[in-house]
Amino acid sequence: MADAEVIAVGSELLTPQKLDTNSLYLTDQLNALGVEVVRKTVVGDERERLTDSILGALARSQILVLTGGLGPTEDDLTRDAVASALGRTLVFQQDICDQIEERFRKFQRKMVEINRRQAYIVEGAEVLGNDRGTAPGQWITHNNAVLMLLPGPPNELKAMFEKQCLPRLAKLLPAQVIHSLMLRVVGMPESDLDQLISPVYMRYPNLATTILAVSGEIHIHLRARSADAKQAEALVAEVASQIEPLIGDRIYSRNGDSLEQVVGNLLRARGAHLSVAESATAGLLGGRITAVQGSSDYFLGGFITYTNALKTKLLGVPEAMLAEHGAVSEPVAKAMAEGARDRTGAEYALSITGYADGDEAGLVYMGLATPRGSEARRTQFPGGRERVRAFSTNIALDILRRHLLATDTHG
Amino acid sequence: MADAEVIAVGSELLTPQKLDTNSLYLTDQLNALGVEVVRKTVVGDERERLTDSILGALARSQILVLTGGLGPTEDDLTRDAVASALGRTLVFQQDICDQIEERFRKFQRKMVEINRRQAYIVEGAEVLGNDRGTAPGQWITHNNAVLMLLPGPPNELKAMFEKQCLPRLAKLLPAQVIHSLMLRVVGMPESDLDQLISPVYMRYPNLATTILAVSGEIHIHLRARSADAKQAEALVAEVASQIEPLIGDRIYSRNGDSLEQVVGNLLRARGAHLSVAESATAGLLGGRITAVQGSSDYFLGGFITYTNALKTKLLGVPEAMLAEHGAVSEPVAKAMAEGARDRTGAEYALSITGYADGDEAGLVYMGLATPRGSEARRTQFPGGRERVRAFSTNIALDILRRHLLATDTHG
Repeated sequence: MADAEVIAVGSELLTPQKLDTNSLYLTDQLNALGVEVVRKTVVGDERERLTDSILGALARSQILVLTGGLGPTEDDLTRDAVASALGRTLVFQQDICDQIEERFRKFQRKMVEINRRQAYIVEGAEVLGNDRGTAPGQWITHNNAVLMLLPGPPNELKAMFEKQCLPRLAKLLPAQVIHSLMLRVVGMPESDLDQLISPVYMRYPNLATTILAVSGEIHIHLRARSADAKQAEALVAEVASQIEPLIGDRIYSRNGDSLEQVVGNLLRARGAHLSVAESATAGLLGGRITAVQGSSDYFLGGFITYTNALKTKLLGVPEAMLAEHGAVSEPVAKAMAEGARDRTGAEYALSITGYADGDEAGLVYMGLATPRGSEARRTQFPGGRERVRAFSTNIALDILRRHLLATDTHG
Repeated sequence: MADAEVIAVGSELLTPQKLDTNSLYLTDQLNALGVEVVRKTVVGDERERLTDSILGALARSQILVLTGGLGPTEDDLTRDAVASALGRTLVFQQDICDQIEERFRKFQRKMVEINRRQAYIVEGAEVLGNDRGTAPGQWITHNNAVLMLLPGPPNELKAMFEKQCLPRLAKLLPAQVIHSLMLRVVGMPESDLDQLISPVYMRYPNLATTILAVSGEIHIHLRARSADAKQAEALVAEVASQIEPLIGDRIYSRNGDSLEQVVGNLLRARGAHLSVAESATAGLLGGRITAVQGSSDYFLGGFITYTNALKTKLLGVPEAMLAEHGAVSEPVAKAMAEGARDRTGAEYALSITGYADGDEAGLVYMGLATPRGSEARRTQFPGGRERVRAFSTNIALDILRRHLLATDTHG
């Protein structure tokens, strides 16, 4: 079994503000290949310490992932440090330089001289193309070890790792199959969920179970590893069949789809459309729904009514209702959703009105207007402004998901 | 000058779910003493790798903080590894054992045998009492270095560090001050910026300069360390005074404020109000503006018009204009902003219309409507859907920022 180390490069990662989060993604990916991450290091933009860290890691582990330090500036030293640790030279590659220049041209900009630095490759390295940025990655084999040099920005790193490192690693590592399943759950706290399902998964020490709270949702990862694909799959199925009935319809996805994707697919299947009316979240719900490519199939638009005056003017919420019940109330949530539905022509509309801070922070009402009337739900979230707003969009989407599931596709 | 390394011990910190966050607190505390953290390591509960990490750190740095691995179980190995790295023995201390037993009694529990492990101290160490848990810390001087062994739970670690390590470190270290400045920049690529300012900062090797691209913005960190507070401040000011003119008004913040905070403060100072009309971003701009507490002082609300029909119906964009120029065009961006301004009564309105994916992905127009007419800007962003949408909100906010700065506070 191969061990891996991750070295995150960048002085900003040694400040009191920044954490290396790329290593979490890399650990997850490597674990899925049966590789354990045995050490993580963060080192600054300093040639000697970086070289020293690389040498140390190579002395211990077979897989070394370096993230960051591939940019065009003077303090991007990963290329140099790796070359120096391996006793190899850096080689300028004109074709890479041309590609970087081409990328600049495409965006109507001129490549500046320092970007040439990114065209230097450690002697003998395979180049890992970067379709999301200018910094190419590098794949280097050295004695019995392999080094991956990946860019720091998470979106560039993830695309490169998945498209180019995973296939190479799969060839390198002993044939092992990992079968995994992710259940995504909304609407219950992590500790409650764990108490519910731990009696099941504790009985299966040969299956890795991870429970992860992610901005108000929970992801349950079940992962079995075996030389025999059927065996791995059967073990995951056995455990899932016991866990799923305990959580029921709070599981919204079994295939990795996000809540907004699931809701979008339900709407699309029904040929239905959605609009929104947002107060406390002021656009976050619309922004999240449209994070899905193709969301214009079902999402029309909506209203951001941060003031009471706009709730009345744009959505027709009666002034008297606002005066009597307050903007954060069940009748106003319903009236907002109804107003958005009427004014956009969508079959469904969601609304959110609540307090993100202040004395009543966390009190939020979500409304849903449908062809058959409207409803509203009251919730009280823990946590600060950002958390309350993010969690509110979860619950709003979940209300619509449950409503759509309860109504027939043809209804 | 003393450099520090932090080693976080614990296999759970090598899973895809957990980060070592204690090091952020420790970095902040050490920086305040003029000590820089030059490397952070996470290592699992494994004797050999841990010992090796300790030896490596001692070879390089004068201050070594170890967190975690001081518990009572078999896999709590920090004590053993430190003893073995320093070539010292572990000594059982009856008085510590008595204290632990006393603590159990206090909480009406009986000390189990394994807790005796926590009463072993590295030969020659000073014991750091723990008033929030059972694991005592240790302070060890070795040649010219000092090692601190601290418990992993953050509340125990913080109390122990502040009460017992800070006073000891203060005695040890020459009085030093770190002065820092962060310049936040919008509207130029990292490589262009670096080429512009590197000739300046390269001449000041005694000032730490970090340039960091963060979702379409750039943060420039300048940091000087000196025994003399005035001297550190003067050095930062000297470099900043040469860098700032090169970047000009693309610097939007010198105090850490975000772009939405800066724009919000400009609006508040003018007693002005803002609304939005969003197509491609579908609420992300409104969501971002209202991430600032108190944004209801100046933000009214707006429109999410994902379809052409809603652009016409809600914002009054003429159908003929949409047919002639397309929804992603300068006239439509202006008409959207004007429509939002008219319908909300805000003095200012921002609009965004663009393609987040497809053939023309990254082509985005931003509109601004003001009391003195409207304008629009065309941009072509690189990158995927998420990036294009996030970057669009940057540029939209920056257009308004520049407009507000160019108009008098009383105008």
